[in-house]
Amino acid sequence: MAKKKKKLKIIPLGGMGEIGKNITVFEYDEDMFVVDCGVAFPEDDMLGIDLVIPDVTYITKNYEKVRGIVVTHGHEDHIGALPYILKDLKVPVYGTRLTLGLLEQKLEEHGISKNVDLRVVKPSDVINLGCFKVEFIRSTHSIADSVALAIHTPVGTVVHTGDFKIDYTPIEGQPMDLARLAELGNKGVLLLMSDSTNVERPGYTMSERTVGETFEEIFMNARKRIIIATFASNVHRIQQVVNAAIKFNRKIAICGRSMINVAKVAMNLGYLNMPEGMLIDIDQISKYPDERLVIITTGSQGEPMSALARMASGDHKKVDIVPGDLVIISASPIPGNEKTISKVVNDLFRKGAEVIYESLADIHVSGHASQEELKLIYSLIKPKFFIPVHGEFRHLKRHANLVNELGMPSENIFIMDIGKVIELTEDSARINGSVTAGKVLVDGLGVGDVGNIVLRDRKHLSQDGLIVIVITIEGDTGNVVAGPDIISRGFVYVRESEDLIEEIKEITRQALQKCENKRKNDWSTKKSIIRDALRDYLYEKTKRRPMILPIIMEV
Amino acid sequence: MAKKKKKLKIIPLGGMGEIGKNITVFEYDEDMFVVDCGVAFPEDDMLGIDLVIPDVTYITKNYEKVRGIVVTHGHEDHIGALPYILKDLKVPVYGTRLTLGLLEQKLEEHGISKNVDLRVVKPSDVINLGCFKVEFIRSTHSIADSVALAIHTPVGTVVHTGDFKIDYTPIEGQPMDLARLAELGNKGVLLLMSDSTNVERPGYTMSERTVGETFEEIFMNARKRIIIATFASNVHRIQQVVNAAIKFNRKIAICGRSMINVAKVAMNLGYLNMPEGMLIDIDQISKYPDERLVIITTGSQGEPMSALARMASGDHKKVDIVPGDLVIISASPIPGNEKTISKVVNDLFRKGAEVIYESLADIHVSGHASQEELKLIYSLIKPKFFIPVHGEFRHLKRHANLVNELGMPSENIFIMDIGKVIELTEDSARINGSVTAGKVLVDGLGVGDVGNIVLRDRKHLSQDGLIVIVITIEGDTGNVVAGPDIISRGFVYVRESEDLIEEIKEITRQALQKCENKRKNDWSTKKSIIRDALRDYLYEKTKRRPMILPIIMEV
Repeated sequence: MAKKKKKLKIIPLGGMGEIGKNITVFEYDEDMFVVDCGVAFPEDDMLGIDLVIPDVTYITKNYEKVRGIVVTHGHEDHIGALPYILKDLKVPVYGTRLTLGLLEQKLEEHGISKNVDLRVVKPSDVINLGCFKVEFIRSTHSIADSVALAIHTPVGTVVHTGDFKIDYTPIEGQPMDLARLAELGNKGVLLLMSDSTNVERPGYTMSERTVGETFEEIFMNARKRIIIATFASNVHRIQQVVNAAIKFNRKIAICGRSMINVAKVAMNLGYLNMPEGMLIDIDQISKYPDERLVIITTGSQGEPMSALARMASGDHKKVDIVPGDLVIISASPIPGNEKTISKVVNDLFRKGAEVIYESLADIHVSGHASQEELKLIYSLIKPKFFIPVHGEFRHLKRHANLVNELGMPSENIFIMDIGKVIELTEDSARINGSVTAGKVLVDGLGVGDVGNIVLRDRKHLSQDGLIVIVITIEGDTGNVVAGPDIISRGFVYVRESEDLIEEIKEITRQALQKCENKRKNDWSTKKSIIRDALRDYLYEKTKRRPMILPIIMEV
Repeated sequence: MAKKKKKLKIIPLGGMGEIGKNITVFEYDEDMFVVDCGVAFPEDDMLGIDLVIPDVTYITKNYEKVRGIVVTHGHEDHIGALPYILKDLKVPVYGTRLTLGLLEQKLEEHGISKNVDLRVVKPSDVINLGCFKVEFIRSTHSIADSVALAIHTPVGTVVHTGDFKIDYTPIEGQPMDLARLAELGNKGVLLLMSDSTNVERPGYTMSERTVGETFEEIFMNARKRIIIATFASNVHRIQQVVNAAIKFNRKIAICGRSMINVAKVAMNLGYLNMPEGMLIDIDQISKYPDERLVIITTGSQGEPMSALARMASGDHKKVDIVPGDLVIISASPIPGNEKTISKVVNDLFRKGAEVIYESLADIHVSGHASQEELKLIYSLIKPKFFIPVHGEFRHLKRHANLVNELGMPSENIFIMDIGKVIELTEDSARINGSVTAGKVLVDGLGVGDVGNIVLRDRKHLSQDGLIVIVITIEGDTGNVVAGPDIISRGFVYVRESEDLIEEIKEITRQALQKCENKRKNDWSTKKSIIRDALRDYLYEKTKRRPMILPIIMEV
């Protein structure tokens, strides 16, 4: 019998058919490594949830095989879940300097930075992870120091783009290493895994540098304070604000915890540069005239607790918005945040600020490649097989269509789902089986302790509130000795609904009487009879369905 | 002493500094009338709320002055609150045929159509409402039969645009009556109140007709079923689907309650025309080949219970999406709906449908005027005073800026807020005082019975759930005779948190012991000591803040 041929397995555990929590496992024989490990934002129906992280059961079950974790850049959706995962998984983490600098800060917040083996790499470095050689390739994205990966495996080379755009004029450092990608393409690439985030956008994504030009124009005409909100991690954007401030002789103050944290790391590592004495403490702003000040802040998504939202609503301790302030929101709304941003903009206008936001000027560019860039990368790599990554199903599907139009046969394109396993040899690829994958919900200190039943109850409570009915019954006789007492929250004002409350008591009593023939201590039957009677009555009366909690105490 | 000069009062009770629930009161001496009376969607923090309607206390308090209600068009945000208001307010309602046709259907659903005096008007009609003459002016918008108003008052003429765009090639009927607006402008207009919805968009809004051209192209190339989702009220859009279906020999089936309702009214009144035998019942679709079918459906906003969302998730009773189906979402996302639409698009793609949605083709145009159209109307009317209407604060502010750039002095422009009163004479205008105004929340059958405390409780419950602690105490002795029993919902799984539950019981017992020195029947002190102790413990342990409900029963 011929020995079974070994295959490369690639298993996305997140980031497929969804935005965020990007993580992919590469496995061959006894070796395994992981690319990225990010968080996702909770969906609208995940009430009270702080974060969503990937289910990494498959990785922890194969602990002894895991040779390391490779991270492509420092965004939350690529590194944010590592503090949770690295508590149980003691393996080295490889990434570029800024990426690991940001990760280290995160690990410190979680109190585990001492226990993690962080290994800094540079673009063009190649590391060995078991049978894999992982090559880091300089890339460009909305965060500095991002990389693509060429993963050299026993069955061929896999190129994973990470998140990228093709920026020929990046703010610092060099453009994406297209030459190396072309070289890899010429040598032959088995599989390309490419970022699908912006596949719906025709044309090219503009260079980050264009934003700087807009900033200069705005700064030139500004006569009062300038307040700029952007993503904390967009170090290049912040550098451009700094550059404009230098040119127009303004001091910089920084607001918002994550902005301060990232700026600190980026300055320490040399990714954010400003002249001595330019950065002032936010407490000092009153000492400078308005036309000499720029405040860089978090809150570009209108997050209710962010510095900008608090300034807009008048709740910020250090910054009061006054008429004449110029506020620039240098970001696009992440889908779902349109209304919170709109609220902040309205509040700022009400306070007399001038506000420059989306679509009013070129104050933001995306960090992801548009269609023509995706075509370019594909054409340089000329892979045998293709997997679109990072996106909802529609993005993956449209990326598949785009590559199909470029000549890739449909049967060589694989739209994956999390947990699905694709097996590759030198000349074949097929989806074969699946492993555990999914969402783990983080709520406060709890990781994974909130599941569907808890969420369903929160949803129910959020819609119509609840009614608690308490009755104390004498165990021996079955007689009611106290109650029914009614407590209601989130349903109706009890004080304004005395008749309703009396009715509820009466219906409870009637329901109890109905049960008298039943076994007198069968509390669960009694409770469900009370619950049913009240549910019908309340829906009839109010067309609402509060949660009904009958409690029977026995004395 | 000179007799005090009478003034025209204009009081917006909704639609200012907010999207939706448009309603404005016009008052002069002993006469009053109302323009529009719409609903708004609940905001994100109004958990469980179905609808928001305006607080019309000021109108009901002045019942004897109210000469009538005038409605400009049949959209929900202009007529949707009338069924609630007209229960108490017996005054005639004036509007065009389609507008009142749609309103009548609504009143029937609320069981009050018999009691309401609906009076149909045509464009160019003038009605007398006390000292006011209200003239209806043909307009164009994303619903047929919309009008602007010229309100002739003792102090001058007020032009209210209603919602509008300037469509030179509307689908049916004639373009907006610009000639009459120009004539009014030449005679002199005291005040212009103009739609601000699209003030952020440069240029012109495209004609509705351009969508029909796109439909024809799409229909020409389609080989299977076509499913089109759009707003039920957009009769012109539906007519264009019908026209394309006629041209390419397809039958029409209609899906979704509101779509069926509106189509019925529009067909009865002659606003929607199709050849005999073209409309088929949704139950009959299996009898026709795919390439002979168009299904028009609700759900263009991805509403979870809508027909399209149910088709996408496989829950629709009559329509199964199959590979090859072409789905067109002919609408823009209303801010806040991006994620629900995205979910529907993903689900449709997963089922193998082709989906054409926003930004992929010219399959939707707005119903509201862009900047150049707003300038045109302003320039024709040349009013003495200006009030931007219909929009959030930022829209009103930008509309004010736009008109200011056209030469109107800032002091003649008034950004209003709901409840604020503006008083006008022939040559003056000033904001003077305010009246009751606000939001009334509709939840099930309850109108106004859910307020801030109930909403705050729903919010609290939605985030971290609740814990109920029940103890039965002997009144005479103060001894605990049953409990503490713990019930938790939306907090943690009780079964997986037995230790935590035991801890909660123990802390409750300790808290009770601490109270022993207090008056033994002071339940409220006891409850608050239990609540405080548990709150601190649970936050320390879980970083969550469930609602804590201690209940003490006395026997």
